[in-house]
Amino acid sequence: MENGIRLDYNNMMYENIGLKGIYGGDIANIRPDMEKAHFNLNEKRKNGSLEWMDIIYDQEEEINEILETASGIRQWADTFVVLGIGGSALGPAAVHHALKHPYYNELPKEKRDGWPKFYVVDNVDPERLSGLLDIIDIKTTVFNCITKSGNTIETMSQFMIVKDILEKELGKEDAKKHIICTTDKTNGALIKIAEKEGYKTFFIPSKVGGRFSELSPVGLLPAACGGIDIKELIKGAVSMDKYMAENGVMENPAYMYAALSCLALEKGRNISVIMPYADSLKLVADWYSQLWAESLGKKYDINGKQKNIGQTPVRALGATDQHSQMQLFVEGPDDKIIVIIGLDKYKREITIPVDSDVDDLGFLRGATHNNMISIEQMSAEYALLKAGKVNMTITLPEVNEYYLGQLIYMFEVATAFAGELLNINAFDQPGVEEGKNAAYAMFGRKGYEAKKAELDAKPHKDKKYII
Amino acid sequence: MENGIRLDYNNMMYENIGLKGIYGGDIANIRPDMEKAHFNLNEKRKNGSLEWMDIIYDQEEEINEILETASGIRQWADTFVVLGIGGSALGPAAVHHALKHPYYNELPKEKRDGWPKFYVVDNVDPERLSGLLDIIDIKTTVFNCITKSGNTIETMSQFMIVKDILEKELGKEDAKKHIICTTDKTNGALIKIAEKEGYKTFFIPSKVGGRFSELSPVGLLPAACGGIDIKELIKGAVSMDKYMAENGVMENPAYMYAALSCLALEKGRNISVIMPYADSLKLVADWYSQLWAESLGKKYDINGKQKNIGQTPVRALGATDQHSQMQLFVEGPDDKIIVIIGLDKYKREITIPVDSDVDDLGFLRGATHNNMISIEQMSAEYALLKAGKVNMTITLPEVNEYYLGQLIYMFEVATAFAGELLNINAFDQPGVEEGKNAAYAMFGRKGYEAKKAELDAKPHKDKKYII
Repeated sequence: MENGIRLDYNNMMYENIGLKGIYGGDIANIRPDMEKAHFNLNEKRKNGSLEWMDIIYDQEEEINEILETASGIRQWADTFVVLGIGGSALGPAAVHHALKHPYYNELPKEKRDGWPKFYVVDNVDPERLSGLLDIIDIKTTVFNCITKSGNTIETMSQFMIVKDILEKELGKEDAKKHIICTTDKTNGALIKIAEKEGYKTFFIPSKVGGRFSELSPVGLLPAACGGIDIKELIKGAVSMDKYMAENGVMENPAYMYAALSCLALEKGRNISVIMPYADSLKLVADWYSQLWAESLGKKYDINGKQKNIGQTPVRALGATDQHSQMQLFVEGPDDKIIVIIGLDKYKREITIPVDSDVDDLGFLRGATHNNMISIEQMSAEYALLKAGKVNMTITLPEVNEYYLGQLIYMFEVATAFAGELLNINAFDQPGVEEGKNAAYAMFGRKGYEAKKAELDAKPHKDKKYII
Repeated sequence: MENGIRLDYNNMMYENIGLKGIYGGDIANIRPDMEKAHFNLNEKRKNGSLEWMDIIYDQEEEINEILETASGIRQWADTFVVLGIGGSALGPAAVHHALKHPYYNELPKEKRDGWPKFYVVDNVDPERLSGLLDIIDIKTTVFNCITKSGNTIETMSQFMIVKDILEKELGKEDAKKHIICTTDKTNGALIKIAEKEGYKTFFIPSKVGGRFSELSPVGLLPAACGGIDIKELIKGAVSMDKYMAENGVMENPAYMYAALSCLALEKGRNISVIMPYADSLKLVADWYSQLWAESLGKKYDINGKQKNIGQTPVRALGATDQHSQMQLFVEGPDDKIIVIIGLDKYKREITIPVDSDVDDLGFLRGATHNNMISIEQMSAEYALLKAGKVNMTITLPEVNEYYLGQLIYMFEVATAFAGELLNINAFDQPGVEEGKNAAYAMFGRKGYEAKKAELDAKPHKDKKYII
């Protein structure tokens, strides 16, 4: 798209990749399904069930409140900590990492424009939260506890620990300003506690699921507290939405991305590699992995037919992974689609000195790392092409709020669209219930006695299979 | 093994997992291949071509020199930076992250026992090295430039940039003590420059490839400069080697890991998920991914027959990924083997307050994050089992030098052994040559004119496939 990100899928196609590529006829065949998927998504949007799309237009009030809150926090806080897991952690971490300095927390405050340091604690490893408490001053720290359900045990346990420490160190009254809750307006344990204690709260619209929530207060508050221009982020998403509305399904980069991925899956490529050539986008690949994996990995289709479908995301980083996973991508089985993300422009430039005395490597003199990473991207694309491995490239003019907003929104729509093409529900996650229930039973939670009995009766471990 | 890591593969087997599992007969069938692979590896070791195994016994002199160097660095340096890519970066990063504080670089110096901060720069993204230079004081920084070939363009370009800055800021003579080179004794550009300039050097034994080099000076010097007990690390590897020598192929955890992975691959599981339930082992999963992907992803077998073989590693982190990729692992296609890494003991303990007022979540009161992460691990294992997804668990008594040495060595042997079972060369990486040559051609390097012409003639990009 003009003034926007570009999707180049030449290397998916027969003309470039040869016999194993996708043919014009494949695309013609899938086009009716694409039109139908487009129609279905539009219907769902009209009836209000795709609220994650609508929020990019109707959050003016929330955004103003977020900006005001962030500006208040900047006055006194040195540290901003997200307590969350899954979609409540991956989006905030990805956006902050993409747009801020690569060693942000090690910059002096003035180089952070006065914004607080930024941490995301997304695990219950006891070394993690303890470790964080070693290095922060709780008196100048804000904890943003994010959980859609308000009952996520990992996040709620972190919250309980932090609340206790704050109240013991600062007193119940002073602890208040250190806690902000982002959760559902009515459901779950967190909102009840927040209301009782009088904590500042932001709400996640009821129909916006965790992994589609980055452009809601889930992502916007943490971003704003890093000085990220959240209005531009939303503007980027809106520009992508409008472009999609104004162009046909074949010109829609999200739809085409989804359709090509599904065609590749149909032809046996059960792996989707996402490989940004930019350190700044490394965590965007993590965010995308949850989105693609959790949305499309499903046992049943919408008619209840067992399918066990899904395409497994694999994260790689260019140029680094040319010295790691690339050997497998080039020479291994034809079981992958490789998605490269490139940039037209990086934020910095660094030049290899022209007078280096470097033996055989003289050809590098005077080059920049900017040249080098671009050349490596092109050479990797070429090596994949020559090996007959399908690949496509998404190019961002640069990594800023606007284009990142486009990219996030594009991937969200692509995922929802792929769900339609695969005839599955992209918005639920029934497969995690089994593990949750087993955990509840092991904790001895009331109501899970039957599950506990089931667990006690599970196949025993044979010692001969433990070495 | 006693006093060591344990491999539990009950959930790979028919008895637990059901029809899709591995049968006793499958293992009996593969046993002759395992005996043969064992014999082959032993022969190779005897003839000296598995030097990465021998080095755990014969580096006394190097280790003393490394310890002396590290102790000298501790006297004056505040920062230690590894310049490397692939095996020269992943191992040092993994070991440091596993054994040191999770926010190590943000601890005050006394909490680091006087050891320098630690960074690994493994990309040529121009924002990365520039960003690092913003936050470090070059006057108190040591750069350890690591490249086996001595010609790796990413690492050598970083080296040229850093050398230039050091010499301009400190003068040619003073710059010397800031550079340590780890490379081949005779080959490549780096050793020539190091000899000419008089830099401190450590050598990578000529037959030790990059991804098998963590227990050589590649990994040992960076570890020692973080105060890690490298003798214990080696002792752990030796204990694993001895255990393997004293036990049969069926009791060998590395061999069994490889055999089960290959059996799973044969049955269509082209994906190997590695999922530590420990933040500290997150980067060990990255290190393992290179090892498994680059060693086993091969176009040809050792007889030159085209195979396009390989199993794609996927990194996950427990419990975090129970809210991300786990939905796909449980409900998606049966195309994976899932390897969980658990700990008997974490370094810290953190408790959820007993008097928390948390509505329905009262069952969490008084629990620790240690309980929680263990319960989540067991519940995930159970959910996978119930869904019929093969999985195995490696348990470390704790994450310390000794057990980490065991784990690293076990994975290295497992990879070499899998190479034997798959009848491929696990120690080369011919597939990366195409990309390298294409990059040289684009840089205009002498001798690559034909490749340049080939690139100029590559299929053009059709605008209709760019949206």
